[in-house]
Amino acid sequence: MGMIRFVLDTSIFVNPDVRSKFGATPTEAMKTFLRYAEKLFGKVEFYMPPGIYREIMNFVDEQEVSPDVELYIIKKPPNVHDIKIPAFVVYELIEDIRRRVDKGLRVAEKAVRESVIDTENVDKIIQKLRRNYRKALREGIVDSKEDFELILLAKELDAILVSADVGVLTWAEKMGIKWVDAGKFRELLEELVEKFEK
Amino acid sequence: MGMIRFVLDTSIFVNPDVRSKFGATPTEAMKTFLRYAEKLFGKVEFYMPPGIYREIMNFVDEQEVSPDVELYIIKKPPNVHDIKIPAFVVYELIEDIRRRVDKGLRVAEKAVRESVIDTENVDKIIQKLRRNYRKALREGIVDSKEDFELILLAKELDAILVSADVGVLTWAEKMGIKWVDAGKFRELLEELVEKFEK
Repeated sequence: MGMIRFVLDTSIFVNPDVRSKFGATPTEAMKTFLRYAEKLFGKVEFYMPPGIYREIMNFVDEQEVSPDVELYIIKKPPNVHDIKIPAFVVYELIEDIRRRVDKGLRVAEKAVRESVIDTENVDKIIQKLRRNYRKALREGIVDSKEDFELILLAKELDAILVSADVGVLTWAEKMGIKWVDAGKFRELLEELVEKFEK
Repeated sequence: MGMIRFVLDTSIFVNPDVRSKFGATPTEAMKTFLRYAEKLFGKVEFYMPPGIYREIMNFVDEQEVSPDVELYIIKKPPNVHDIKIPAFVVYELIEDIRRRVDKGLRVAEKAVRESVIDTENVDKIIQKLRRNYRKALREGIVDSKEDFELILLAKELDAILVSADVGVLTWAEKMGIKWVDAGKFRELLEELVEKFEK
């Protein structure tokens, strides 16, 4: 059996629903994860693109997790100049964005019409606009280079992508990438540790 | 010398600035183009993705250009399942869209704040919103599958892309595709006819 490789998304340590399985805070969650990583050292590798690592470390107390975090999480950017994306995936992305852009304009027009009728509540209307606009244009789509790097790195390494992000997982599926739901990741690590201890 | 191949965008026949070189109306422009295509038959091939062809034929009187338009313009969809896109091109697209989406929200918020102050001119504000939103999210970007098909088809055929669309030409450059400005296309055809008549 070859080395098992995982590429880790922020959601494991930052998304409160997912993180709760590992710990009450991002720092606690990271410490729990690193205990598994230590036990699996030499058998399982854990990777993060540097952008994702930086995002997570904004929430984690570095003092408490160093140097284990350096040892057990391998930071590697994907090789964006060699990896290729099937054209139909980009084709679908462009179609998806086109629809979302149209929807974003409808959301904006609705907010303008509401604010004319209800001039007292402009701040509330703008808050709703932001929420609906974000929903129309961001939710369920790969909308940042950090997310895209996760997918590319998993592809490059033929690794298993661990995420709870719908947009990321949808793309991963299109590109034929192995993935596991971040919500099941702790149980999976538990199982791996058991298997390797036998 | 092998067969010269061109992939043609709508702008040649529809964009008024570009079209004027070929004729006063889309139908006239198409007839002028087809006269060149006839002279170059067997030496130069002209392609269009079917989506682009349909777009153009909305503006052209089919009766007046048939069957030459069928003979001299080869309709071919790109093979989206075999062509691959370098990851860094998609990476840049995602970054570009991210910035544009943020800008679109700022445009929308501005429109809401304006409409509260100026409740009488809501239609004007919405018109301005549409204009600015389109500018933020559409201009200079490949934002439709029709545009993307032009790029893919040119790549697949190793053809010269003829367009006046900044978004299309920017992507073409990133993907290493040959292109000519649609505004220079008539002169280029003229030259080709001369060369082949010698």
